[in-house]
Amino acid sequence: MSEANVPQNQAPYRQLHDVSLDDGVIVQAFANLYGCRIGAQTRVGTFVEIQAGASVGAACKIQSHTFICEGVTIGDRVFVGHGVTFVNDKYPRSTNETGMLQTADDWELLPTLIEDDASIGSGATILGGLRVGRGAVIGAGAVVTRDVPAEVVVVGNPAKPSG
Amino acid sequence: MSEANVPQNQAPYRQLHDVSLDDGVIVQAFANLYGCRIGAQTRVGTFVEIQAGASVGAACKIQSHTFICEGVTIGDRVFVGHGVTFVNDKYPRSTNETGMLQTADDWELLPTLIEDDASIGSGATILGGLRVGRGAVIGAGAVVTRDVPAEVVVVGNPAKPSG
Amino acid sequence: MSEANVPQNQAPYRQLHDVSLDDGVIVQAFANLYGCRIGAQTRVGTFVEIQAGASVGAACKIQSHTFICEGVTIGDRVFVGHGVTFVNDKYPRSTNETGMLQTADDWELLPTLIEDDASIGSGATILGGLRVGRGAVIGAGAVVTRDVPAEVVVVGNPAKPSG
Repeated sequence: MSEANVPQNQAPYRQLHDVSLDDGVIVQAFANLYGCRIGAQTRVGTFVEIQAGASVGAACKIQSHTFICEGVTIGDRVFVGHGVTFVNDKYPRSTNETGMLQTADDWELLPTLIEDDASIGSGATILGGLRVGRGAVIGAGAVVTRDVPAEVVVVGNPAKPSG
Repeated sequence: MSEANVPQNQAPYRQLHDVSLDDGVIVQAFANLYGCRIGAQTRVGTFVEIQAGASVGAACKIQSHTFICEGVTIGDRVFVGHGVTFVNDKYPRSTNETGMLQTADDWELLPTLIEDDASIGSGATILGGLRVGRGAVIGAGAVVTRDVPAEVVVVGNPAKPSG
Repeated sequence: MSEANVPQNQAPYRQLHDVSLDDGVIVQAFANLYGCRIGAQTRVGTFVEIQAGASVGAACKIQSHTFICEGVTIGDRVFVGHGVTFVNDKYPRSTNETGMLQTADDWELLPTLIEDDASIGSGATILGGLRVGRGAVIGAGAVVTRDVPAEVVVVGNPAKPSG
């Protein structure tokens, strides 16, 4: 039985800083997690980055090459495929109006909510400030620019309900 | 001359478990390969994951940030660009009907075949259960949802023959 | 104060070979940089690869999971999101007409220029041989197949000016 806050498995080349891990979390090699919360039994794949302020529920699968940014809240039993990218800024810029590198004061965080039992296909991009409803399905490679109602399947760029 | 089953090159931070590598295979840093077969002279880039049950032919290039899953068979002389994502499940879910994490018994593997001399552009997503014919070309960023005939070029989301 | 050619920060699992780093460059863990130039104060995220012959200006942000290839020149104060993929070859192939692995003599490099203050959204794919004008914005998940004029916003696959 694993202790809370320590991955259940061994894997090399992980970066885990200031994370809150519930029981039974598995984190694969080459993952970079900091300041985030991960619920019980959730599995995190290789080459995944989860930023400070992000929260992932229990019994989720977060697959390889996925990026979960600050402001993203993921419910329970959510599937997040490989190479999924979340966004939290409408007008990302490197520098502010004075030409200095942006700081947290220079932009508005757009929070995103992925509700329980949703499924996000591999290669999808999820813009900031959106809500993906319970049990919704995002097709592989979709670019999600609007809220997705519960149980609805969306595909394409921009993502629309699947005929 | 390299010996079979050992990469020809040295590179740090590689994870190679239970792999079958033919002569002259090159594997770059930060690659994660397990239970797969790689043909002679094929080159595998950084941040690549190739899962158990996947097979890559000879003289291929598998570029950085690409994910090749179980059920994918790639022929000889195939180019797979950077950030390409394969899929092997039509309805991916984190948990089964009883709310437990899915196991191999809970879903159907959709095998994909990429025939000899095909070329898959960077950033493409290839859905499961498809066949990409000999010498076909998948445009960069395409989302492939149907079989692609030999020598045909497809682009877009969903991918269609290029005008 | 950092010395030139050494990242300002400490981070494990970096590969930095033959790179030219100006003052104040930050490079995160799991980055793979070789033969490239990075301007002052620019930040390079995790899982980023920047190839030989690529050049990045000053005060840029290059976010996680991004691939910058040979032939790409990026100006100053450019934002490059997460999971962005550049391309430098129109007809990528693994092998040449004789069936041998391609070498630098077998293909034409298509140079790409990203001008100052541009912003490239996460998940975007930028084809080779293009120019993205000063202050232009590439939407998240866009596939850019043509030049983008200065200050123009493009979205979609293929990317078109945003209505």
